[in-house]
Amino acid sequence: MGLTVGVDIGGTKIAAGVVDEDGRIVVDDVRDTPATDPAALAATVGDLVDDLRRKRDIDAVGIGAAGFVDASRSTVLFAPNIDWADEPLAARVHELVGLRVVVENDANAAAWGEFRFGAGADVDDLLLVTVGTGIGAGIIHAGQLYRGGFGVAAEVGHLRMVPAGILCGCGQYGCWEQYGSGRALVREAGDRIRAGITAAKPLADLAGGDPDAVTGPMVTEAAQAGDPLSIDLIADAGSWVGQGLASLAAVLDPTTIAIGGGVAAASDLLMQPVQEAFVRHLSAGSSRPHAELRLATLGNEAGLVGAADLARIP
Amino acid sequence: MGLTVGVDIGGTKIAAGVVDEDGRIVVDDVRDTPATDPAALAATVGDLVDDLRRKRDIDAVGIGAAGFVDASRSTVLFAPNIDWADEPLAARVHELVGLRVVVENDANAAAWGEFRFGAGADVDDLLLVTVGTGIGAGIIHAGQLYRGGFGVAAEVGHLRMVPAGILCGCGQYGCWEQYGSGRALVREAGDRIRAGITAAKPLADLAGGDPDAVTGPMVTEAAQAGDPLSIDLIADAGSWVGQGLASLAAVLDPTTIAIGGGVAAASDLLMQPVQEAFVRHLSAGSSRPHAELRLATLGNEAGLVGAADLARIP
Amino acid sequence: MGLTVGVDIGGTKIAAGVVDEDGRIVVDDVRDTPATDPAALAATVGDLVDDLRRKRDIDAVGIGAAGFVDASRSTVLFAPNIDWADEPLAARVHELVGLRVVVENDANAAAWGEFRFGAGADVDDLLLVTVGTGIGAGIIHAGQLYRGGFGVAAEVGHLRMVPAGILCGCGQYGCWEQYGSGRALVREAGDRIRAGITAAKPLADLAGGDPDAVTGPMVTEAAQAGDPLSIDLIADAGSWVGQGLASLAAVLDPTTIAIGGGVAAASDLLMQPVQEAFVRHLSAGSSRPHAELRLATLGNEAGLVGAADLARIP
Amino acid sequence: MGLTVGVDIGGTKIAAGVVDEDGRIVVDDVRDTPATDPAALAATVGDLVDDLRRKRDIDAVGIGAAGFVDASRSTVLFAPNIDWADEPLAARVHELVGLRVVVENDANAAAWGEFRFGAGADVDDLLLVTVGTGIGAGIIHAGQLYRGGFGVAAEVGHLRMVPAGILCGCGQYGCWEQYGSGRALVREAGDRIRAGITAAKPLADLAGGDPDAVTGPMVTEAAQAGDPLSIDLIADAGSWVGQGLASLAAVLDPTTIAIGGGVAAASDLLMQPVQEAFVRHLSAGSSRPHAELRLATLGNEAGLVGAADLARIP
Repeated sequence: MGLTVGVDIGGTKIAAGVVDEDGRIVVDDVRDTPATDPAALAATVGDLVDDLRRKRDIDAVGIGAAGFVDASRSTVLFAPNIDWADEPLAARVHELVGLRVVVENDANAAAWGEFRFGAGADVDDLLLVTVGTGIGAGIIHAGQLYRGGFGVAAEVGHLRMVPAGILCGCGQYGCWEQYGSGRALVREAGDRIRAGITAAKPLADLAGGDPDAVTGPMVTEAAQAGDPLSIDLIADAGSWVGQGLASLAAVLDPTTIAIGGGVAAASDLLMQPVQEAFVRHLSAGSSRPHAELRLATLGNEAGLVGAADLARIP
Repeated sequence: MGLTVGVDIGGTKIAAGVVDEDGRIVVDDVRDTPATDPAALAATVGDLVDDLRRKRDIDAVGIGAAGFVDASRSTVLFAPNIDWADEPLAARVHELVGLRVVVENDANAAAWGEFRFGAGADVDDLLLVTVGTGIGAGIIHAGQLYRGGFGVAAEVGHLRMVPAGILCGCGQYGCWEQYGSGRALVREAGDRIRAGITAAKPLADLAGGDPDAVTGPMVTEAAQAGDPLSIDLIADAGSWVGQGLASLAAVLDPTTIAIGGGVAAASDLLMQPVQEAFVRHLSAGSSRPHAELRLATLGNEAGLVGAADLARIP
Repeated sequence: MGLTVGVDIGGTKIAAGVVDEDGRIVVDDVRDTPATDPAALAATVGDLVDDLRRKRDIDAVGIGAAGFVDASRSTVLFAPNIDWADEPLAARVHELVGLRVVVENDANAAAWGEFRFGAGADVDDLLLVTVGTGIGAGIIHAGQLYRGGFGVAAEVGHLRMVPAGILCGCGQYGCWEQYGSGRALVREAGDRIRAGITAAKPLADLAGGDPDAVTGPMVTEAAQAGDPLSIDLIADAGSWVGQGLASLAAVLDPTTIAIGGGVAAASDLLMQPVQEAFVRHLSAGSSRPHAELRLATLGNEAGLVGAADLARIP
Repeated sequence: MGLTVGVDIGGTKIAAGVVDEDGRIVVDDVRDTPATDPAALAATVGDLVDDLRRKRDIDAVGIGAAGFVDASRSTVLFAPNIDWADEPLAARVHELVGLRVVVENDANAAAWGEFRFGAGADVDDLLLVTVGTGIGAGIIHAGQLYRGGFGVAAEVGHLRMVPAGILCGCGQYGCWEQYGSGRALVREAGDRIRAGITAAKPLADLAGGDPDAVTGPMVTEAAQAGDPLSIDLIADAGSWVGQGLASLAAVLDPTTIAIGGGVAAASDLLMQPVQEAFVRHLSAGSSRPHAELRLATLGNEAGLVGAADLARIP
């Protein structure tokens, strides 16, 4: 197969690009997401594909979307940020563009992208964990994407880390992404500003004195400028990330783990605590092989590139 | 391929049997395990196989063993109850019997047995979780055994449930099998007897007044006789099992989960609390398909039958 | 001193009564609480006192109020349900009625009432713990009320039970009253109804199918009617209560602990799990004397009676 | 009353000294502790007192001892490091020396010493928390020692911090002193050396490569020399200390908290994390007065001086 189009549907933007067999984006484009209108959203994807195919011949379309995608890679069962419910996305877009269309969970698509062309290009299995506002993941095992029985595997951000812990948007308590993510950085920073802790002064200043105005990038920025509290907060989040990876290693036994996502990208201060907590918390760590931790290499393009490549697989 | 031999190496006994293509044990035998002498152990396996092949023609040997087995299904990297270290078990036995020999982790073998001939015979994926003294598991995904990158996947008993929790034999703290297993039943019962709680009188009597003499079977026996504390302890363990399964479902997304092992077998009182805690703790439970929970059906034979069948796979 | 008036200021009602030296309420009255208008609230208290003193001669006024009361027993620093901020309540009421007025935290007043005339009338020290929507307490040590250095001791509902646990209204995470209180019953019941657990059907029916409509009394009612899930939920809450009491015993070493509040009053199902968890979790339990657990005996009147009696103490 | 003798009975040494009314040690002496022979131990105390009274006239003897002391300040109910069981220590020593003898828990004695002559000399209430191998405390409220109903209050090291957490020597799980003490430093350091974490190399070198040979002083020494991991470990322990203090503040409401003990003494790196975690975890922290945290000032002499002074109180 020759060129394919990868589409990455986010809550605010839809990115699409023509991708070649080596994972290179030949040409690309971006539109706003009509998040509350599934028909308009499908039409926007159709327009993007039509525009791109005027520039290059393409053979198929791969779409990555945040949400639960069914095992047939056609329907989005549920999405946190878009008004989809059992949305027949592949069929809708296929009707518009007349090409084969496959839909994949966005983290799965990104994991596939990293596995084929990025941090995992030299290995046979890969666990990609993205640390952004929340925590997502995709699992590649024995050269294949592990999709799960219903198609909704690798929702690792909802591994429970703390019994009866912090309430998560998923309705449960103590989920991993409440502790080792950008959301955790923001909450912990805000709590310290509210408590009036002296060390929180630099963060409070960045946030204009408003504990609710702190953002993840503020914390990483302050940490890179040397703010001790921000460095500590990132180390704490990194420690939680590493602890969760140790649990995942017991279950999934990857040889290689790539860490991606906004928090990892923004700060070289995250990986050291991740690495140390991971090794420290490995079950039977002295008797088993250790997975290698790496930074992901494709950045934001991983999902688009991965989706395009998945469209090549029958 | 016709008949194969399955071998199940436990800490005290080695069971072996000739198994047909439908998973039926045609003839079998058992010996004591020479746990401290790897050469003698391999010789015992060789003897068992030689005795069995005098009765039937066999094509290959599959061995299930508790421990970390490498990805080539030949070497036991580490075992908790047998003095193996990087033990070339497949080669040793092959040298003795001249047949193809594959080695597999015992929980993986049991999962494969249940998948092919037991609780999972009608489905395409299966998570088998065994609740005995500890907690073990095997993962079948898309019709294939998920072995992990190094071959040591599915050590789910070491999923961390409680940060800085109870010390586990694996060197870590708060592992699942410290809370939802026979070991937990024994510890919690003993603690209550030591505390002199009135409700612990029936268990104390069963244990001859010695809190250290309580066993898992005592607790299940007392529970089945209606002892309220024992029923509660099994319900607590079951709740922990269900909570862990909910975390596993987020990561692995099985459609079917079979529960095996001694605690599950001994008591019909375990499954109800498991089921309720599982549903109660599922992330985004109202937006995702739910796995079906079942009892495993092959009992102790699952490992032997599964190992025999895995020997058919090249 | 002869008769005094006790006043109990709640978020919706103000109760007042003339109390004799034996803790008997001679005559009493009740008004609505003008919770958003401190001046009107003081005026209402003044009116109540004036009405009562027309019926009997009184010597002083004791007021119990939910909130932080300063060490001089005059000013309410902060109250969760009434718009008070550094409210000079004693001075305001004194100005209106011309009698000596003392203000006390409502749980402290209730503990004093139980100590003098109720569950603790026969002992020299008492820890009263009230299990209602939240958890409150008052400490009597060596015959005296333990008020703390700032006057705000015994906020035991905010003992942290779970690190990084459930968010509490106090701004912290994992507070005791999130686990062992009426609030916990309501949350846990609602979560189970939302999860669609079969056993939650009776509670769902009581709540008209709406998980947000469950109340604590519904759960206790269902439990008393034999609903297994409700019995379990109360046992869970009771276990948390007992676990917290064990921590308090390590710190405070009471000889007698009285349990009061709406949840304890409503259900005889709470005390057994409280008792067992308390004994089970006592540090060095076999080497130290155990506090005796009792039900409080004065019910809602404890605060009013205790406040009246505290007004006798210079 | 004029001079009194204070005696501090530790597991290996007994220190005794003549103390004046200003808390000054006039003359002192020390002997080995015959820990397994209660009669010999009492005789040793008697000898020490006899030697000291030859040098000065004394009026009474105060003894501080690690263990549960009964409410009459005479009998040691239980001691972790000395073979005492319901030991009538005051009577035994009185028989030998003919003076009034009072016995007090050693942490209570130290708190009284700090309250009268040290960190709390200027305040009316004091919570002394000692962070050594474990965590101990003494409570002074309204100018008086808070002894508890049975005489065994302030065992704050056994406040539970983590449900189902690390096993403590007291038979319970998750006690504070498993997380915020010298014992925690040693365990965490050892775990990291065992895990082979790069950052643990300096500590491993100090311990001669043996994870079981790490001591608390090694960690504080390495931290003061700038070792990043040791600084982190002390910060983690300090954070746990601060979190526990926040729970204690909710219950006890001290205006002043003094931190003593070996870990606090050895490292100025502990107090900053203690302070920040304390403020960060205070319930309703923005609505209530905050206790002031201070370092204790009397060091090892606090217990001896406090015991001597308590002997003055009838």
